Amino acid sequence: MQVRKAVITAAAPNQNRLPLQQLVDANGDEKTALQLIIEETVLAGVEEICLVIRPGDHAAYQSAAGSHLGSLRFFEQPGPLGYADAISRAKDFVGDEPFLHLVGDHLYVSADEIPCAKQLVSIASEFECCVSAVQSTRENNLPYFGIVSGPNVPRRQRLYEIQRVVEKPTPTFAEQELVTPGLRVGHYLGFFGMHVLTGEVMPLIDRLLTDSQSAGPSQKKPTLSDAAALLPSRGRYLAYEIQGSRYNLGIKYGLLKAQLAIGLSGIDREQILAEMIDLLSHRLEAQTAS
Amino acid sequence: MQVRKAVITAAAPNQNRLPLQQLVDANGDEKTALQLIIEETVLAGVEEICLVIRPGDHAAYQSAAGSHLGSLRFFEQPGPLGYADAISRAKDFVGDEPFLHLVGDHLYVSADEIPCAKQLVSIASEFECCVSAVQSTRENNLPYFGIVSGPNVPRRQRLYEIQRVVEKPTPTFAEQELVTPGLRVGHYLGFFGMHVLTGEVMPLIDRLLTDSQSAGPSQKKPTLSDAAALLPSRGRYLAYEIQGSRYNLGIKYGLLKAQLAIGLSGIDREQILAEMIDLLSHRLEAQTAS
Repeated sequence: MQVRKAVITAAAPNQNRLPLQQLVDANGDEKTALQLIIEETVLAGVEEICLVIRPGDHAAYQSAAGSHLGSLRFFEQPGPLGYADAISRAKDFVGDEPFLHLVGDHLYVSADEIPCAKQLVSIASEFECCVSAVQSTRENNLPYFGIVSGPNVPRRQRLYEIQRVVEKPTPTFAEQELVTPGLRVGHYLGFFGMHVLTGEVMPLIDRLLTDSQSAGPSQKKPTLSDAAALLPSRGRYLAYEIQGSRYNLGIKYGLLKAQLAIGLSGIDREQILAEMIDLLSHRLEAQTAS
Repeated sequence: MQVRKAVITAAAPNQNRLPLQQLVDANGDEKTALQLIIEETVLAGVEEICLVIRPGDHAAYQSAAGSHLGSLRFFEQPGPLGYADAISRAKDFVGDEPFLHLVGDHLYVSADEIPCAKQLVSIASEFECCVSAVQSTRENNLPYFGIVSGPNVPRRQRLYEIQRVVEKPTPTFAEQELVTPGLRVGHYLGFFGMHVLTGEVMPLIDRLLTDSQSAGPSQKKPTLSDAAALLPSRGRYLAYEIQGSRYNLGIKYGLLKAQLAIGLSGIDREQILAEMIDLLSHRLEAQTAS
């Protein structure tokens, strides 16, 4: 199984400006967050990328895409119709091919030589099935993540056979239903914001969207977790604990943390450390003086 | 003298996306760099603000201006015509009133209770003349700044009577011509990116632009320093060493440094320190493990 396509969603009202933010990558080159996300997919072997954006954001994204503009296609989500709907906008682009899916408001720093998305794509290629990247997630962070559970794949480290997927479970529910053997107590497998999905996920999303529409406008909009929850009954669906960290740009100080993490993992590490110490000593001086 | 107007220039090709960057201010509120720059002027008593931008950037700036949009006016600089030309685009907005001028790619952190721009406006109001904010600038940074020199104003700390203004002087020239008594050896008064100018600067800029046009297209485009150099012969022109630091967002890691400095000066100081330590220890762990 070869993963040639990527779908990046960036249409949420509060995240649409994040891919335009300026950062410095691990090689010391100035790039937009969008360029960094695109490069994560390209390093994983992706050739064609589709961005799901809000109407009106097209020009800004084009200018932020840098040299990758040629391999990009844009699809608009006309309103805040939810996460599952955003992915379904890429239906024609994806066809029946497998695709890598990343969210547009996260950046990834590998703890390894191999970039995070490439780690994931390797697993998908080996097992020829859907794989979601996960990370060990502490109980207090359950309200922010989709959580999966299931047994370890025999003789494989950090690889799990997903049996259940629950979006933002309560701690009680998680403790009763979602414990994955081998993790530390009070820890669960939380989505990392990165998935390899096969073409068969699109009909599942379509069904969820149709059901949701017929249930009326007050119905909660289907998420990706809702679609992922249907996958284990269809065939093998794996979770892989990525060797790396993810940084949510959309939270307070998210950009700062991402930039520090990227900087400290890259060639400008010494410079970043020096700047940090310089600022701290300046602040201490200012405090002592006042 | 009351300073009711501000002119912010943000039309340089390499800086036009900087005011759209997302930051967290000293109170912990998420804001764009543009909002922070605007608030710096509002805290100094400014009521009307004009932004000089590139054609096509209007919509992005409007959306980044937040609640201040009502007090903003936009003027376009049609091409890369230089710094003096950018300021002259605000001629009709300014009329013959004094105005605060800030560049759109810098942020300021006061070392004092009083914000940087307010420190400057207070001096301008007291002395009723043009005042440029300056900072003590080491010889090795001369290539980046306009440099001024002149004697200390008697019985006033950090206030100087400007006699000369030279854009980016060589170290030799600076040592012979631009030494300001009272500064550390090898230090000069460099522009801080913040000025209070009176209406009389506009005719000076007009003259420079006319001269430059008649000299032909190969002529270097006039800068603000060129206009400022003409001010001392017209009347009093002061330099005030601001109690604070400035952060150039346009340089590599400029956004990171600005955010760290703002964060460490504000109410989230403890959180920022904790995040820094957390990231450092993670990195050390990763290094030890590999």
